[in-house]
Amino acid sequence: MKGSETALSTAEQRPEKKGKKMKGNLIIGQSGGPTAVINSSLAGVIKASWKAGIRRIYGMHYGIEGFLNEDIVDIEDYITSGQDLSLLKRTPSSFLGTCRYKLPPIEGNEKLYEKIFDILDKRNIEFFLYNGGNDSMDTIKQLADYAVTHQKKQKFMGIPKTIDNDLPMTDHCPGYGSAAKYIATSMKEIIRDNESYGVSKPTICIVEIMGRHAGWLTAAAALSKDIDCSGPDLIYLPEVTFDINDFIERVKNLAKTKKSVVIAVSEGLKTEDGKFVCELGTVNDHVDAFGHKQLAGTAAYLASLVTQQTGLKSRYIEFSSLQRCAAHLASRSDSDEAYNVGYFAAKAAFEGNTGKMVTIQVDSREPYVETYDMFDIHEVANVERKVPLDWIINDGTYVSDEYLKYARPFIIGRVAPYTAGGLPIHLTMTKKRNHK
Amino acid sequence: MKGSETALSTAEQRPEKKGKKMKGNLIIGQSGGPTAVINSSLAGVIKASWKAGIRRIYGMHYGIEGFLNEDIVDIEDYITSGQDLSLLKRTPSSFLGTCRYKLPPIEGNEKLYEKIFDILDKRNIEFFLYNGGNDSMDTIKQLADYAVTHQKKQKFMGIPKTIDNDLPMTDHCPGYGSAAKYIATSMKEIIRDNESYGVSKPTICIVEIMGRHAGWLTAAAALSKDIDCSGPDLIYLPEVTFDINDFIERVKNLAKTKKSVVIAVSEGLKTEDGKFVCELGTVNDHVDAFGHKQLAGTAAYLASLVTQQTGLKSRYIEFSSLQRCAAHLASRSDSDEAYNVGYFAAKAAFEGNTGKMVTIQVDSREPYVETYDMFDIHEVANVERKVPLDWIINDGTYVSDEYLKYARPFIIGRVAPYTAGGLPIHLTMTKKRNHK
Repeated sequence: MKGSETALSTAEQRPEKKGKKMKGNLIIGQSGGPTAVINSSLAGVIKASWKAGIRRIYGMHYGIEGFLNEDIVDIEDYITSGQDLSLLKRTPSSFLGTCRYKLPPIEGNEKLYEKIFDILDKRNIEFFLYNGGNDSMDTIKQLADYAVTHQKKQKFMGIPKTIDNDLPMTDHCPGYGSAAKYIATSMKEIIRDNESYGVSKPTICIVEIMGRHAGWLTAAAALSKDIDCSGPDLIYLPEVTFDINDFIERVKNLAKTKKSVVIAVSEGLKTEDGKFVCELGTVNDHVDAFGHKQLAGTAAYLASLVTQQTGLKSRYIEFSSLQRCAAHLASRSDSDEAYNVGYFAAKAAFEGNTGKMVTIQVDSREPYVETYDMFDIHEVANVERKVPLDWIINDGTYVSDEYLKYARPFIIGRVAPYTAGGLPIHLTMTKKRNHK
Repeated sequence: MKGSETALSTAEQRPEKKGKKMKGNLIIGQSGGPTAVINSSLAGVIKASWKAGIRRIYGMHYGIEGFLNEDIVDIEDYITSGQDLSLLKRTPSSFLGTCRYKLPPIEGNEKLYEKIFDILDKRNIEFFLYNGGNDSMDTIKQLADYAVTHQKKQKFMGIPKTIDNDLPMTDHCPGYGSAAKYIATSMKEIIRDNESYGVSKPTICIVEIMGRHAGWLTAAAALSKDIDCSGPDLIYLPEVTFDINDFIERVKNLAKTKKSVVIAVSEGLKTEDGKFVCELGTVNDHVDAFGHKQLAGTAAYLASLVTQQTGLKSRYIEFSSLQRCAAHLASRSDSDEAYNVGYFAAKAAFEGNTGKMVTIQVDSREPYVETYDMFDIHEVANVERKVPLDWIINDGTYVSDEYLKYARPFIIGRVAPYTAGGLPIHLTMTKKRNHK
């Protein structure tokens, strides 16, 4: 399945008359950590369903966990127009609610799977779409396998979503681009801020970025480098073992010539003995200028260590969940792709596909041309894709131009929020709440 | 001095011919913590200087600290057009660099003051503008006093700037509006994120906001409350003594009915014995899901305390310096006012005023109408303005509608950044660097 003009267009239209072609209903769930554009995928699914004449579009309230409690909503109780879809796309965090729940293996849990298919049959649901990361793709795999072995009619399709960008088979994952844009933008602003003091002693600013196993998000800090920004001085990804002594030496050397040193670190950095840096504990009661004991997290630990071992002034910043929910800075490119994978997943299900995840293929990076495809879910589920080691350079302290070339297209453009009183407006489920 | 059409207009024009009227030169310095719009004030000063025909516009590189090292730049080495001014306004953090340096008293330090006036005389500088918070206004006070008592010709004017919003005499401070907009926007996104998990146990999210003595920034969290957002559940300002037991009880009660509880706390919260909450130290080895020891800062401490004492899931977020440097979310209203106070300060100096700080007066909040005035710097320097106690309601756990009415106009509009490759562009001093 390749990209079509219809799906790529994000111009909305009001739903057509219902019940045009399809007999079965559809259900969509959102799972795992939210992103700034996860609801664009939902918008794509809704649009494709309207186009195909799906009679009822159900939503799992809080993912498969809510589904198992039969907490199922009729999406058209909340979303009935192109205008709703546009606002939905500008709404961060899972509109339907999410969960972290992995289905147990089929063997030994047949009752649970029977229950799931009973719930589906009761509502005449033929199309089951699930939007998430690795664990969510495992859900699709299990359900698709069960359906095949038990001669069930339902089609199961996975829609990729993760700021971590660690799903295999796809060039990249929807959600990553917006997180990368947030990280690069904020990094640029933080570097400027840190550079503003120039007379006193150097300040070492350590910024902690999400990504426990894969360094994609931390690598995005490098995107801040441009003619008007020096970028971070060092970038540490979890793909490479972290050498604390070497780190301290590099900081010392940088501080010899620079008043401002900014370092991006992944929350998942590990030392040679396999310990997370954030588990290394306290540094001799180091207290910052404001009386903060700097003990929590990777960046906080390293900042206090720097001060203790070098006497340099240090501070730390944790981007925390703003990385995944800052819709006010959502990337247009990312939002469009998130919409498209949702649209394509629904369309593929309607065409009879099952047990697959939609993927993004990049035919050309400059100019950027992407198409959509799908892969057997067995090749996707539970596999983590990391940053290629040859993209990590300078003895594990920076990322290469290959990474920059790879990631730059993902942060282009901005989805301008609808605003009122100077703040973004979001679509919520408070308008109508109608359990079936 | 009241607002004039000329100054309120932010449309730029290229500099007129130099040397039209003024004989003396001007110097401007930026001081203290940067803001998202501090450079708008610089733009206002430059525009007014162009208009008045000032021959040379000098900048202190790194504030008065750099000035004392004679690190002085010619601003027109970097900024020569209306286009430059527009980009300058979109550039966060002090363009000229900043410092935290308070001049010592005149008495006993006459040599230092003589040196300052020698530097000024050497460059024929007649107008000295300083843009900052309380300490910076103290600098203006000392210099203006010295000039008066020593029959010096120089005029000294203060331009208010602080995200903390704690300067007296002015209705509010430039820089505050953009920080408030960042806080309110991020809070809205964080609340949505925290609400997305609905089946499992409640999550208590504690957000730490800047402001050691005054709660203005933390109060801005309340601006997130709207028809599409419940707002934070509790808001704690440093103006009120923090009662830990009462806090825990309130969290327990909220968690009985809500799956998501979001609480805004000031970094400056103190307990009855006068101790900062962030100084209370560790909570019995509490470790979060990712192995983080949650020990640093007010929010981190309270989050770990909540989990320890209630068993509830908790997490913390620190907005950190993004509050003051997120120019990508700068408020239009704030940026315009920052420009205007810079413009008025320069104009007032040209008209012979000295030893004063420009202030913003609000004649009407709805519709919002502001004018500009100025006050004797002796009434301003070293005085901190806090949130009125009668604006803090619900036993010190929320802010009143009076606050909302006060602050809402400050976050209106957005200064859209100029972008390249999906990221904001900033003006830097790397283009030309020409020490005099």
